[in-house]
Amino acid sequence: MSQRVKIKQILLSDKTDYEVTVKGWVRTFRNNQFIALNDGSTNNNLQIVIELDTDPALQRRLTTGAAISVTGQVVASLGKGQKVEVKARELEVLGDCDGEKYPLQLKNRPSLEYLREIAHLRFRTNTFGAIFRLRHSLAFAVHKFFNEKGFVYLHTPIITASDAEGAGEMFRVTTLDLKKPPLTVDGDIDFKEDFFGRSTNLTVSGQLEGELGAMAFGDIYTFGPTFRAENSNTARHLAEFWMIEPEMAFYDLKDNMDLAEEFIKYVIRYALENNREDLEFLASRLVEEEKSKPQQDRSEMGLIEKLEFVLNNEFMRITYTEAIDILKNSKPNKNKKFQYLVEEWGTDLQSEHERFLVEKHFKKPVILTDYPAAIKSFYMKQNEDGKTVRAMDILFPGIGEIVGGSQREENYDKLVKRMEELHIPVEELSWYLDTRRFGTAPHAGFGLGFERLVLFVSGMTNIRDVIPFPRTPKNAEF
Amino acid sequence: MSQRVKIKQILLSDKTDYEVTVKGWVRTFRNNQFIALNDGSTNNNLQIVIELDTDPALQRRLTTGAAISVTGQVVASLGKGQKVEVKARELEVLGDCDGEKYPLQLKNRPSLEYLREIAHLRFRTNTFGAIFRLRHSLAFAVHKFFNEKGFVYLHTPIITASDAEGAGEMFRVTTLDLKKPPLTVDGDIDFKEDFFGRSTNLTVSGQLEGELGAMAFGDIYTFGPTFRAENSNTARHLAEFWMIEPEMAFYDLKDNMDLAEEFIKYVIRYALENNREDLEFLASRLVEEEKSKPQQDRSEMGLIEKLEFVLNNEFMRITYTEAIDILKNSKPNKNKKFQYLVEEWGTDLQSEHERFLVEKHFKKPVILTDYPAAIKSFYMKQNEDGKTVRAMDILFPGIGEIVGGSQREENYDKLVKRMEELHIPVEELSWYLDTRRFGTAPHAGFGLGFERLVLFVSGMTNIRDVIPFPRTPKNAEF
Repeated sequence: MSQRVKIKQILLSDKTDYEVTVKGWVRTFRNNQFIALNDGSTNNNLQIVIELDTDPALQRRLTTGAAISVTGQVVASLGKGQKVEVKARELEVLGDCDGEKYPLQLKNRPSLEYLREIAHLRFRTNTFGAIFRLRHSLAFAVHKFFNEKGFVYLHTPIITASDAEGAGEMFRVTTLDLKKPPLTVDGDIDFKEDFFGRSTNLTVSGQLEGELGAMAFGDIYTFGPTFRAENSNTARHLAEFWMIEPEMAFYDLKDNMDLAEEFIKYVIRYALENNREDLEFLASRLVEEEKSKPQQDRSEMGLIEKLEFVLNNEFMRITYTEAIDILKNSKPNKNKKFQYLVEEWGTDLQSEHERFLVEKHFKKPVILTDYPAAIKSFYMKQNEDGKTVRAMDILFPGIGEIVGGSQREENYDKLVKRMEELHIPVEELSWYLDTRRFGTAPHAGFGLGFERLVLFVSGMTNIRDVIPFPRTPKNAEF
Repeated sequence: MSQRVKIKQILLSDKTDYEVTVKGWVRTFRNNQFIALNDGSTNNNLQIVIELDTDPALQRRLTTGAAISVTGQVVASLGKGQKVEVKARELEVLGDCDGEKYPLQLKNRPSLEYLREIAHLRFRTNTFGAIFRLRHSLAFAVHKFFNEKGFVYLHTPIITASDAEGAGEMFRVTTLDLKKPPLTVDGDIDFKEDFFGRSTNLTVSGQLEGELGAMAFGDIYTFGPTFRAENSNTARHLAEFWMIEPEMAFYDLKDNMDLAEEFIKYVIRYALENNREDLEFLASRLVEEEKSKPQQDRSEMGLIEKLEFVLNNEFMRITYTEAIDILKNSKPNKNKKFQYLVEEWGTDLQSEHERFLVEKHFKKPVILTDYPAAIKSFYMKQNEDGKTVRAMDILFPGIGEIVGGSQREENYDKLVKRMEELHIPVEELSWYLDTRRFGTAPHAGFGLGFERLVLFVSGMTNIRDVIPFPRTPKNAEF
């Protein structure tokens, strides 16, 4: 028998008149003759032609979802939509698929909501096939980008005893018996008896550990799961998500912005070059989806047009202070159309303000810098004005914040003073402060939520549709 | 000021007579003139030459660990050990490092044990610099290998409600108040009140979810953290480690072995080609370390020789049954030198047996196949003999099991029967069984413990030295 060949490879070539074995799943079978076969290597199906006099019992098993193996000749196709097809010489059903029970067969056009409930099968649809091949390419491009630049990929810990970052609510990790936990003499839970001999949680960020790496390797990045135990049931939040956090010694805020912009453009370009078919499919899916919306709610650009627009335009860079001025004088603020009116400097920006800046005012990605210290984290470098920090947030149309970063405060005394102001336990973070005690240097970094990137590039609107098995409040299926 | 250039780039070239700015940390400063500067891009230092009449106050600050910025001319070096050096025109100390407090300065040759206690600083040593650059390259090679083969990188969930695999003890993930957990009317913990509305744990393997992906994309792989709450304080076990799990539709056991062997050789070759200096450093470190051992305990081959040996030889493939025969008739078994004597078919192999096969008998990596069903997992494909399964373990010298895998049981009835025999709740794994209900197909996969791979390639002996921040019983520092 000939070697199995993937469908993507056969369709990529015009070559004909050679024998192949292909294996995959039946998408459709029509006219007792034409099988559309998919093996997951591409969204495109390979047409298999069988003899009209093929055993009817065998034909009845060629249902949607059935796994088959076919050996036959690749020939030029006379049909529309494909250059080549395979004339079957041998056909074997490897696994049947009962159409009366198969969830993907039961509904003609299963909704995204329904497919979320059968997340273990949704990979088999065109939409999720395209999304997760795209996600793969974006993940690979992340590694490729940093590897080419000489960054070291650092696996920062998932289980951590550090709870000092204040980045959000955390999940506890424990092996204690919840029904009879050991207690101290004071009646508190005795975490000395827990697996790690102390109270531990799932990480909310690898940044602090990443900084330790940057102070040795110069440039590092993380790419791993992070967690938030927040009860946010929105289309933008997950309890478990993947984050990319580069950290660079000797970088200031401008270097940091340059890198982030270059990075985002690199991975989008990689997807455009390597996943054109998936993106074209997702682009037409988006057009279909938006047909049910009123005209003014539809995207101004198509998906691919939007991605190319991001590649071909510089991100707008403005300070928080400039943004406040723009917002204060904006029409929706003057006409009281904002839910939260922008009145004074120092207030945190709401999603509606970010959307106005990105989607209405500048109409492109915006990098906001130099936020008030009071609304940002303790480790950000303090500006000389005494009230702002060298923070940067990158805001994307339709997504909001996709990147958050900053230059870090490298001065030991200033950092400790700020920690004390915020009641962050200095002693517990002694290891972190060692980077400022021993050979401190200016450095900067950022975090990019990977699912938000996939959301943007895929044109999907619910973050649960771009991670294989979403974890959200009251939901940890599969 | 000229653009900052990384030291690796300067040392790679013979080019001279151009100005650069370099930034890094002082390794040594001698004769009031020569700075060995390291920026983490390579283990090699760049020699910086300063004027003898440089301000003595500045000179006193050039201590080991201090961060500096230097601008100067790249010139041919007259000294030994380097082709080029930099004649400093401008020198600035960015961050001082007090030698009387700096842990890496306090001991002349800090032991690996001591460095484990200061894991936040050990990246700055030559040994850990080499290890973690090597780890980076191996991780990148993993992604590169699978990407080139058209595999989809699938992020399987970290938090899971599935506890049916029986792969080991698990960590609980919860947001319940341990002091006052909600109880059901029966007095049990009421997990309906927990974050996910059910009892959840940290994953021990992404395999079952990976199989769902393989049944849609054909070939997938995972590369993420996995967890074991086992109280094993050994040099080979971690509570948190990274695992790579490819899963392939239409693969049988032989295809699986072929892929695993090709994969391991690919990533080792990548490291040899891209991290030669790091490996040479680690090779000489190993020679030094082994000098304190008796002759017979030292490695027969040098580190690089050992890696090349693996590349240039086929892995030995034998069945469990053949292995038992060899072991039964082996000298250590007959002379009762084994702690556990090998007497009958069906017994699980101990580490001493695996080491005998790999290190003494075959003297190369060994793939053991077709283990007794009783000592393997429920999902492995049952052989026709009714007693063995299509399992494979790859055993490496000095490491033991580095890969465990199998062809999976694709037959629904056989799989359910086996689950029932083992009292695995069929209903809970209904989503998993859907792969066998709808278009089932032969498939196979394996898991490779990433740290064991890094251990083998780096020549280190304790697994805590090849992961940035090891998590082990009673230890979750940083």
